[in-house]
Amino acid sequence: MLEVAIIGASGYTGGELLRFLSVHEEVEVVAATSRQYANTPVRKVHPHLHDLDIEFTDQSPHDLDVDLGFTATPHGASMSIVPQLVDKGIKVVDLSGDYRFDNIGTYEKWYNLKHEKPLDAVYGLPEMYREEIKKANLVANPGCYPTGAILAGIPLVKEGLVDTLIADSKSGVSGAGIKPTPVTHYPNISDNIVPYAVTTHRHMPEIQEKLGKFGDVRVSFTPHLVPVIRGIITTLHSFPNQEISSEEIVDLYNKQYQAEPFVRVLDTGETPRLSSVRGSNFCHIGCFEVDENGRLVVVSAIDNLVKGASGAAVANMNLMCGFPENMSMEGCGLHP
Amino acid sequence: MLEVAIIGASGYTGGELLRFLSVHEEVEVVAATSRQYANTPVRKVHPHLHDLDIEFTDQSPHDLDVDLGFTATPHGASMSIVPQLVDKGIKVVDLSGDYRFDNIGTYEKWYNLKHEKPLDAVYGLPEMYREEIKKANLVANPGCYPTGAILAGIPLVKEGLVDTLIADSKSGVSGAGIKPTPVTHYPNISDNIVPYAVTTHRHMPEIQEKLGKFGDVRVSFTPHLVPVIRGIITTLHSFPNQEISSEEIVDLYNKQYQAEPFVRVLDTGETPRLSSVRGSNFCHIGCFEVDENGRLVVVSAIDNLVKGASGAAVANMNLMCGFPENMSMEGCGLHP
Amino acid sequence: MLEVAIIGASGYTGGELLRFLSVHEEVEVVAATSRQYANTPVRKVHPHLHDLDIEFTDQSPHDLDVDLGFTATPHGASMSIVPQLVDKGIKVVDLSGDYRFDNIGTYEKWYNLKHEKPLDAVYGLPEMYREEIKKANLVANPGCYPTGAILAGIPLVKEGLVDTLIADSKSGVSGAGIKPTPVTHYPNISDNIVPYAVTTHRHMPEIQEKLGKFGDVRVSFTPHLVPVIRGIITTLHSFPNQEISSEEIVDLYNKQYQAEPFVRVLDTGETPRLSSVRGSNFCHIGCFEVDENGRLVVVSAIDNLVKGASGAAVANMNLMCGFPENMSMEGCGLHP
Amino acid sequence: MLEVAIIGASGYTGGELLRFLSVHEEVEVVAATSRQYANTPVRKVHPHLHDLDIEFTDQSPHDLDVDLGFTATPHGASMSIVPQLVDKGIKVVDLSGDYRFDNIGTYEKWYNLKHEKPLDAVYGLPEMYREEIKKANLVANPGCYPTGAILAGIPLVKEGLVDTLIADSKSGVSGAGIKPTPVTHYPNISDNIVPYAVTTHRHMPEIQEKLGKFGDVRVSFTPHLVPVIRGIITTLHSFPNQEISSEEIVDLYNKQYQAEPFVRVLDTGETPRLSSVRGSNFCHIGCFEVDENGRLVVVSAIDNLVKGASGAAVANMNLMCGFPENMSMEGCGLHP
Repeated sequence: MLEVAIIGASGYTGGELLRFLSVHEEVEVVAATSRQYANTPVRKVHPHLHDLDIEFTDQSPHDLDVDLGFTATPHGASMSIVPQLVDKGIKVVDLSGDYRFDNIGTYEKWYNLKHEKPLDAVYGLPEMYREEIKKANLVANPGCYPTGAILAGIPLVKEGLVDTLIADSKSGVSGAGIKPTPVTHYPNISDNIVPYAVTTHRHMPEIQEKLGKFGDVRVSFTPHLVPVIRGIITTLHSFPNQEISSEEIVDLYNKQYQAEPFVRVLDTGETPRLSSVRGSNFCHIGCFEVDENGRLVVVSAIDNLVKGASGAAVANMNLMCGFPENMSMEGCGLHP
Repeated sequence: MLEVAIIGASGYTGGELLRFLSVHEEVEVVAATSRQYANTPVRKVHPHLHDLDIEFTDQSPHDLDVDLGFTATPHGASMSIVPQLVDKGIKVVDLSGDYRFDNIGTYEKWYNLKHEKPLDAVYGLPEMYREEIKKANLVANPGCYPTGAILAGIPLVKEGLVDTLIADSKSGVSGAGIKPTPVTHYPNISDNIVPYAVTTHRHMPEIQEKLGKFGDVRVSFTPHLVPVIRGIITTLHSFPNQEISSEEIVDLYNKQYQAEPFVRVLDTGETPRLSSVRGSNFCHIGCFEVDENGRLVVVSAIDNLVKGASGAAVANMNLMCGFPENMSMEGCGLHP
Repeated sequence: MLEVAIIGASGYTGGELLRFLSVHEEVEVVAATSRQYANTPVRKVHPHLHDLDIEFTDQSPHDLDVDLGFTATPHGASMSIVPQLVDKGIKVVDLSGDYRFDNIGTYEKWYNLKHEKPLDAVYGLPEMYREEIKKANLVANPGCYPTGAILAGIPLVKEGLVDTLIADSKSGVSGAGIKPTPVTHYPNISDNIVPYAVTTHRHMPEIQEKLGKFGDVRVSFTPHLVPVIRGIITTLHSFPNQEISSEEIVDLYNKQYQAEPFVRVLDTGETPRLSSVRGSNFCHIGCFEVDENGRLVVVSAIDNLVKGASGAAVANMNLMCGFPENMSMEGCGLHP
Repeated sequence: MLEVAIIGASGYTGGELLRFLSVHEEVEVVAATSRQYANTPVRKVHPHLHDLDIEFTDQSPHDLDVDLGFTATPHGASMSIVPQLVDKGIKVVDLSGDYRFDNIGTYEKWYNLKHEKPLDAVYGLPEMYREEIKKANLVANPGCYPTGAILAGIPLVKEGLVDTLIADSKSGVSGAGIKPTPVTHYPNISDNIVPYAVTTHRHMPEIQEKLGKFGDVRVSFTPHLVPVIRGIITTLHSFPNQEISSEEIVDLYNKQYQAEPFVRVLDTGETPRLSSVRGSNFCHIGCFEVDENGRLVVVSAIDNLVKGASGAAVANMNLMCGFPENMSMEGCGLHP
């Protein structure tokens, strides 16, 4: 059995890691840390994990003796924990933004932090870097918005069809984390749609840098919070630089993703739905339509807590440790 | 007292017309027609109008003897009713799409209907045609999406700043009408975000034609259904053809709308919210930001059933009949 | 013009008081206090009140020179503010629990507070004490749950039909106030139903004391938080001590409430709906059914922020100051 | 591999059966029938089952050659299908109400149908009849409300503590089925709480008959539709006929359910949550409190589509066929 630790296990991503790992046949969770909830049974914080008979601990990283660690810690905190684990020879999947950027300057500008410990890390999107992930000791798990936007954008950028992409994303409220704020207060967000960080979200440069690996492209990005618990719909608007039909575009996506375990390209006329991917690690992509002005629309749907966070992290662990990529995540979405 | 009839009063727009008109001091509703619910008390269909002691009737248009009629009838049906009313000298506010287009060919193409009775009509957006509305006998009430998109776009097009606009709109489910369908079935739309008619919605040519009055512009439009009862958020993306600051853009909007009774331009840093306009006839516009790629974002919020339908219709009636434009609609939004 | 102050105006009840008072023809709000938001424009906190051009102030009670004050302050705080206002000859409507109880011992037990300044106050439920309210200087505005439960229960207790009532209430989340907590965090309460304080809610003794004025009755009460912004549905279960038909029960309620401006007794077969009263001061009562075991069900619906708080407060002000009871609150509910 | 057929597979319960069975290691679904959608790929109706490469068929029952059939057909339809399957030696789990009652008269009265083919059937609640289910050829899967109410009530009735139970239930909208109606139309049910069939729901006699096996008890029942996709919270009110503490009650429940694979008794102070059981086959029971009037509250939470329908059906199949009861349903709830 692979022994794993979850550092920072009391948030939603911690809960999701535990949900998958607790039914994973090759994994044992030997530590779930939380300073705030040390010595509290996990089920008091994650009530759905009722049968999980473990308590949060307050172990420091260097007391952990495991094969692999998930750092579900905030931006800025990960960079002080991850190196300690790596130094001990522990494989790491980091869920923060600290190791996502090739360009440290971009990270420091958008996160407004000095990066003290840059390390070699692989960007943990299997659809981009599967082989590299298999050999990596440190994987930087992608951001939630970038996951949906990059998967929707790759075929267009790779084919050189677009020079500008506008990603208009709609995210469920769990993306804002487990901590209550005025924005996530039910009476404020229910029956509302709230655009935020409309031109300044730090996931923009992440999408930009990663799609930039496939070709020249400028990415504009605006997120909205919507009264949904889980899920991100990304509506990707672009003006292809040549005439291209819906059918040809579907073909491009099918070619790109046909062998992918977690990406599904929908038929023309089908629409990605959040409920189709709810609770699952799938990404559905569809709506390949071109309007009279030559604007192309592509829409992707993911569960922000799974494919956009913890499910991706488990898939990365699976790849790093030689297990089937979808192990413990065979299930489909929860619809309705 | 002005005597008015509502033709097709059993839908949501009929309910909203009755909500405002029942407290309007200069108006008496003398007929609310509904073939399906003839002789049924209005409150059996609109339970909030409990104190409204009238029944639906099955009167045909030419039996109506009123000063003004609201035709809250479907596209295609209005064109056979409106002319009968106009011929009798009855002022009309039509809530369908039948009289919105200057270009009949555009209407016929997008609505897939032959228009049998084109008539002179004024497009009922007071912010465009207030003086013409005051003198009109037939006013074509704007579509819900066009209202939010046009108001957000006018200053940009008028100033010649943009040649392409992408309107990414998110609408509450009441916009789909009172008739249950699989899409509006609670378990299907709750916790979901559903893009639809992503490049083919008939409100696109309406926005195009009306914004085209202010300058050359190509409009691309994609609507989404969101789990919200009322309201439309329109996120308008564009690339201004000259460098321009947020402050200058706010100034443009303030200049355009400062005297408007129902449009509010928010300060920099404020975000339009559906709850700010819920149940009211206001349109809030804000989020005037430009990103590193030169993309400008402008966001508008309206209540689709009020400013996007029945409230606009009442405002048009007020203008046509010499009442203060906001009569019976002095209230603000219902937040939370 | 009546000059009024709202002490503690930054919460949801403060927002609702301002919504009604800003369109009240006989009232001017001359002070809206908030320590936290002093010198901030009201619309920054209550974005729907965009046109209200006033700022929160930090005035202490004894600096207020007004005709009437609303104390929208927490339990325990009101008792130190209200006496200062009363001493200055200012009429007061207090929205806290501090002056609701005849029996101070009950208050002190359930609120776990020593009451320092008991004063003569009238319980502000016009359906019980209209004439007393008209002459009162201090009115204790009822709790939200008690309003719905008492109105549903009066005819049964008054007629001596029941000796035990079980009130199973379902409340919208705005009832928990404007302050974010884990319980009101969108991902936690959306798609959930949360029973709380199942046998220990402090509104239970309030319902008990007030219904006790009409006859001997024991009241059991369990509240639930539901994923709704506004509104309380109270399902009142009881076993009448004599055989009685639905029709006879409807008659009892009609007799009790026929002249009431804000209570509506529905016909047999009609169901109270939250949307019928949303944003309005109405209470709808219906579902008068008896099952095979002799159990009677009566259901009431109110908007917890209006009839259950600020609307009731405005009605009390209207009564205390000689205005029509429904002044500024003529509108119906917002459905859908 | 066990070969199974789902008769009537296009509804929500059909989708849920397919979700579990498609990952069941011992089962192959060889037929999913739907007259309406014959020859349509299953994923067009159940978009989350994207990888399920089968089509609906229009086979009649007697053309089915399988080991076990699930009849997810409406009340009244099952009684004409089930006997055909049983006659062919096919084991059956019927999800309708047709075979739930011992007393045919009760069925005929409450379902207003003549029962043409009474058969020996075992009521499929493993917590009542596990051993009988193992040997049964025909299992009548329990109703959704009865499942939550019976599990909450058994220990009280068995111990002779109560003679009357009031079950006040709150159900998610998926319980109303996949067919759109005015009640399930998003703008009508969102932000609403709708009591229905307040004294006349046909699940009342089912609860009554089954709890009656444990002792004399009268059951009163009122269901409410709430703006939730999945889940039922049942608040069970009763007046125990002897003084009993919360701790003693918790002990009773622990004793009853300690060995159950799918029932969890919560600690004092914990509250059953729908998200704790969402998508899973668990039933959580908690809130064992007694108020000053001697009223006891017990609350249960289930997913109406799983423990209340398809999950229970799969568990019954597992029992009937010698598989572990929780096979394919090891996962916990989806929170948040």
